[in-house]
Amino acid sequence: MKSYLSMSREELLEELSLVNEKYREAKEEGLSLDMSRGKPAPAQLDLTMPMLDTVSSGSDPHAENGLDCRNYGGPYGIPEARRLMAEIGRVSPDNVIVFGGASLNIMFDTVSRSFTHGVAGQLPWAKQEKIRFLCPAPGYDRHFRITEYFGVEMILIPMKEDGPDMDLVEEYVNNDPAVKGIWCVPKYSNPLGIVYSEKVVKRFARLRPAAPDFRIFWDDAYTVHKFMDDPEGDAQPEILKECEDAGNPDLAYKFFSTSKISFAGSGLSAMAASAANLAEVKRHMAVQIIAHDKLNQLRHVRFFKDRAGVEEHMRRQAEILRPKFECVLSGLEKELGGLGIAAWTNPKGGYFVSFDGMKGTAKAIVAAAKEAGVTMTPAGATYPYGIDPDDTNIRIAPSYPDLPELREAVAVFTVCVKKVTLEKLLAEA
Amino acid sequence: MKSYLSMSREELLEELSLVNEKYREAKEEGLSLDMSRGKPAPAQLDLTMPMLDTVSSGSDPHAENGLDCRNYGGPYGIPEARRLMAEIGRVSPDNVIVFGGASLNIMFDTVSRSFTHGVAGQLPWAKQEKIRFLCPAPGYDRHFRITEYFGVEMILIPMKEDGPDMDLVEEYVNNDPAVKGIWCVPKYSNPLGIVYSEKVVKRFARLRPAAPDFRIFWDDAYTVHKFMDDPEGDAQPEILKECEDAGNPDLAYKFFSTSKISFAGSGLSAMAASAANLAEVKRHMAVQIIAHDKLNQLRHVRFFKDRAGVEEHMRRQAEILRPKFECVLSGLEKELGGLGIAAWTNPKGGYFVSFDGMKGTAKAIVAAAKEAGVTMTPAGATYPYGIDPDDTNIRIAPSYPDLPELREAVAVFTVCVKKVTLEKLLAEA
Repeated sequence: MKSYLSMSREELLEELSLVNEKYREAKEEGLSLDMSRGKPAPAQLDLTMPMLDTVSSGSDPHAENGLDCRNYGGPYGIPEARRLMAEIGRVSPDNVIVFGGASLNIMFDTVSRSFTHGVAGQLPWAKQEKIRFLCPAPGYDRHFRITEYFGVEMILIPMKEDGPDMDLVEEYVNNDPAVKGIWCVPKYSNPLGIVYSEKVVKRFARLRPAAPDFRIFWDDAYTVHKFMDDPEGDAQPEILKECEDAGNPDLAYKFFSTSKISFAGSGLSAMAASAANLAEVKRHMAVQIIAHDKLNQLRHVRFFKDRAGVEEHMRRQAEILRPKFECVLSGLEKELGGLGIAAWTNPKGGYFVSFDGMKGTAKAIVAAAKEAGVTMTPAGATYPYGIDPDDTNIRIAPSYPDLPELREAVAVFTVCVKKVTLEKLLAEA
Repeated sequence: MKSYLSMSREELLEELSLVNEKYREAKEEGLSLDMSRGKPAPAQLDLTMPMLDTVSSGSDPHAENGLDCRNYGGPYGIPEARRLMAEIGRVSPDNVIVFGGASLNIMFDTVSRSFTHGVAGQLPWAKQEKIRFLCPAPGYDRHFRITEYFGVEMILIPMKEDGPDMDLVEEYVNNDPAVKGIWCVPKYSNPLGIVYSEKVVKRFARLRPAAPDFRIFWDDAYTVHKFMDDPEGDAQPEILKECEDAGNPDLAYKFFSTSKISFAGSGLSAMAASAANLAEVKRHMAVQIIAHDKLNQLRHVRFFKDRAGVEEHMRRQAEILRPKFECVLSGLEKELGGLGIAAWTNPKGGYFVSFDGMKGTAKAIVAAAKEAGVTMTPAGATYPYGIDPDDTNIRIAPSYPDLPELREAVAVFTVCVKKVTLEKLLAEA
């Protein structure tokens, strides 16, 4: 295809006329398609249904330590659940606390606790003058909403191909005592699908924060979520071990969950951290809650058994997810390849394809898609304060729709990309 | 039996010698009995086991509104779960949010949110100079731990037979703008087993707080937990309706759960409040969590169906609990009745018997029991800061041990009461 950038005004007008015709047709179909959220598809959830039978009226409701999982007790998780989560997180069970269904909730509570009770004996953040967080972007909108909700000043850190811009991260963290945290999705990052390189992980572990209450918020949400072979992802160094080896054992909190392994919203979540960090969490939890749902912990342990069981399960999920990503990628390539107006990522795992249009087009593309019945994540959502300074980035979530829906949604989306871009090129010509 | 108070020194010495002999015997038995926490017994939990079969691999995982309970969505609870919880709480489903397993967690988060984000547009509590809470006592230790953890100044409000001393409550709430809350367990109160009278409930609803961000924390933990006929308890006015009728719709937050209906730690919890109060909660939740466990909501709805189902279930639990309370009460009466050295409550529901020894004896009694292998709730725990000013109150939790264990535990406990009291009377004689 001829690049739009080398087209004459007449060619652009002709192309727009064709594209507008397609857009009109799409609108007339009255579609209702959703590529906005990283939701597992029903077929993925079906794979986990047998888990529900592992704890029934005929089952032994006791944990291996004799604890009755139907009753109070075991606030940090039953031993076998801590072990399973530790295997998923590649850490020791001693460094794991198992929580309820949502790792987002742990992260929120961690920020909230830092505001009310402080970190490592320092003044509560609520009593400090200024709290700053580094926000690698494009990133996960719900991370940014937590820090925004608590009035944290968010600083945009550009993402590079191997992770956040570490020169900038080091400059901020090692010099500014108001910088208290950084949001990271280190593997199949949301939305870029990037795997932080070994070098980046090691640079994180070797930070020398100006603030003693600085912590890395390492959201390892997609730690076992590859749908393609990925030796590099498999070999990513484990952050807590790297921190310990670098003499920084308390530097990072790690969060992960089975939300996209078992059931979204009815899974297990976990936090892994050093003994000192977990001691602070436990002091808080001892007041906040008596125990999380241990029957659900039993279900997970009995169904998955160990990391090998989880990996086998994720291979089955990959069979469902891979064709969807391929569908999106081939649709984008077919319609937009060679036009010179867009770029997108090609992830090996996770839940998203990250799309970049020309500067100043993302909001208009999402609006046009919405009008044609295709819901995308709002443009800008992947940036702190919801503001994408270049207005280029759109997050595509291929997991939930089925293949025919997805094909149609991508077709409509690419029409919108062309339409908005052509209008922009013509207006600026 | 002759009252200890009318015994001569010689009689006291003789009695102490007999009691010491019994205490020695008890210690030699090497008992390990626990009357410390309000835990359901396995037999109670067994009644709920069929609930686990209501959501299995063959079940429809959808809520009545079509929501897939295995996936994200439905942050405030599926409609049928909100309806069930609303029936238990005697409120409208519109005024209910269904949370995870622990109502304690909701209360903690409510206090935490008030500190970080304020209430009703007022300054966050963290930014106000002084925050005070009224703490009717004896009361629930975990309530007091929450406010203590947040540095709230706790003011002891004595309990009367029909609820907290309302003259004092009104004086504080209506005049002191630093008073932001009061902890209440209005029915079968922890540990007294008191049912707040209609008059007390109505006086609560008619408070005119000096602080616009004052709220009543109404922990209706035992709302359907009677084990005896109790027309007065059944007729207790519903606090949210009373507040609304009194022109105070936003005055109270109500918390309740199925922790002692279905499974402790794997139940449902709920908060009921006015639309304005729930709007604040929802703003917070929208950032904190994506959704609570909806499969567990389905389980509860399919098993209990409605309030009538819950009441029938609680009648079956009452058959298990009633004999245990009778065992404790008859044991206390048999050994301590007429001695003039102790008093205790005779509740119609809930989980506790509240025991009062002579001034200055509670800590020593609990210590003596511990030495003889019987664990009680720490003396003082039922008071703010863990300090019972008279050192008289001990909470007895009869629910968990089986009847033979309970009989033995009560026997040891009464020996300890006699021993400590006799030693005190002799020392003071």
